[in-house]
Amino acid sequence: MDWKAAISAAGDRISGHVQRTPVMESATLWDAPVALKLEQLQHTGSFKARGAFNTLLSQQVPEAGVVAASGGNHGAAVAFAARALGYPAQIFVPAMAGPSKIALIERTGAALTVVEGEYANALEAAREHEARTGAMQVHAYDAEGTVAGQGTCTAEWEAQGLQADTVLIAVGGGGLIAGALGWLQGARKVVAVEPETACALNAALEAGTPVDVEVSGVAANALGARRIGSICLELAQAHLGDSTLVTDEAITEAQVALWQAHRLLVEPAGACALAALRSGAYVPAPGERVAVLVCGGNIAPDPFIRDTR
Amino acid sequence: MDWKAAISAAGDRISGHVQRTPVMESATLWDAPVALKLEQLQHTGSFKARGAFNTLLSQQVPEAGVVAASGGNHGAAVAFAARALGYPAQIFVPAMAGPSKIALIERTGAALTVVEGEYANALEAAREHEARTGAMQVHAYDAEGTVAGQGTCTAEWEAQGLQADTVLIAVGGGGLIAGALGWLQGARKVVAVEPETACALNAALEAGTPVDVEVSGVAANALGARRIGSICLELAQAHLGDSTLVTDEAITEAQVALWQAHRLLVEPAGACALAALRSGAYVPAPGERVAVLVCGGNIAPDPFIRDTR
Repeated sequence: MDWKAAISAAGDRISGHVQRTPVMESATLWDAPVALKLEQLQHTGSFKARGAFNTLLSQQVPEAGVVAASGGNHGAAVAFAARALGYPAQIFVPAMAGPSKIALIERTGAALTVVEGEYANALEAAREHEARTGAMQVHAYDAEGTVAGQGTCTAEWEAQGLQADTVLIAVGGGGLIAGALGWLQGARKVVAVEPETACALNAALEAGTPVDVEVSGVAANALGARRIGSICLELAQAHLGDSTLVTDEAITEAQVALWQAHRLLVEPAGACALAALRSGAYVPAPGERVAVLVCGGNIAPDPFIRDTR
Repeated sequence: MDWKAAISAAGDRISGHVQRTPVMESATLWDAPVALKLEQLQHTGSFKARGAFNTLLSQQVPEAGVVAASGGNHGAAVAFAARALGYPAQIFVPAMAGPSKIALIERTGAALTVVEGEYANALEAAREHEARTGAMQVHAYDAEGTVAGQGTCTAEWEAQGLQADTVLIAVGGGGLIAGALGWLQGARKVVAVEPETACALNAALEAGTPVDVEVSGVAANALGARRIGSICLELAQAHLGDSTLVTDEAITEAQVALWQAHRLLVEPAGACALAALRSGAYVPAPGERVAVLVCGGNIAPDPFIRDTR
């Protein structure tokens, strides 16, 4: 797999469909300046729009449209991309996605089913829908089209003049960091940051193979993959610089810091990578220039939606 | 007054003290792409830090330090700049500043006095403090140092590649737009946007001289100047392209749109300029490329501060 070529092609394909998200250098979030990419400003509030558009634009979409199961962000992105491209979409989410993310999907106009239970139940319902209707299932992280799409985030950051030795990236199922690793291939140090209570990549690296982990904690509906994607694990084994874990307290602290320093309101997953820096879970060497990818902004409760569920 | 030179000098002076704030082009906030400058990501959540740093860095600060009266944003900026430069600061705010902005000032470590009544009472207290202690009063908008500092926001935007025929800017006392007019001097069309219930510039343009207006509405603690600054009025009479008014409903609608489209959570004043575009208060000509300055993010209630006052 030539990831550089796949990501370049994805970038050409989705250009004009996704936001070129802004970058900045924060003087106050840490002891030294930190480069930030504000990918939570992407359509539907997370990087997931990149993979969704790349998938829908590179494959033949059947008449039955697309289907996705999601903790919220991936579903919203697939729904948005499907609407933009004129395809019907059916999204299945578990109730734990929460009213903010459910409202976000509803705003796209996609058909939405809220499933009792957890993510696995939503996935089961999505697979039944796929089998029954012939709709195309869009995978959240462990598919080449998805990973190539997410890789455009890092490619775009470099095109915007990224100056960093090290890039910190939060990991759930691993699509975002896999894209970064596929693009960078060791050119910069990539550090994986996971919640202690949702650490599928860390566990897989230790075991040498994907293993199931229990997931919980403040970032669970975005980062709570039970098993790391196989594409991500392979790329991590080849190119990952470091794997580090953060507590829920550190994530919340970083979330408050992003708001207080720069009026960036993000969901816990969006603050996870910064948490590694601020909490000392990752300690850069003297002079090491650090970049943090801010990946999701779909916070609950939504500031403008009254939670009545 | 050579505003171009003053703003260039201010830019050199405050570089390294203020954030270079990011820019982006939104594909979804309006019918055509809209250029945004995210100045609410500035230190203390508004452009006010620019004028505060420029003032403190260009004048001799007495041993008694600095004093400011403010609806919140200017006070926070002066407090931040004073702390960064090692000067004592005393800030007076009226209770209407609200707990979010009061907490923001408290976090800077400045001495803070919450004054009963309205802004005028805080200003009176600040003047008494100035007379008693010899502290330097930092003016919120009608001072050359302040206007030159705010002008660096537009200068920076042009250096970042701004492509727009027209720039929409919210107006309170007029410091921000005066800086833009001083920098652009007709090179691009500048449109002033004010709430219908706080329209000091619009009223002054009609009267041909600054006049007192009643102020109220959702953006009052940021845009509620009773009288436009004389520097602003003079520049507006020379260079302003258009003056337009928006309703509170339009401001709130634009505030929700910024959040839903891009996870940008701003205070009402920060959404005021966009409101003119979305509500149709300002209608661009066909093909006219429009830019919107997002100027403040200090929303109430603060998502992370429980309002107990």
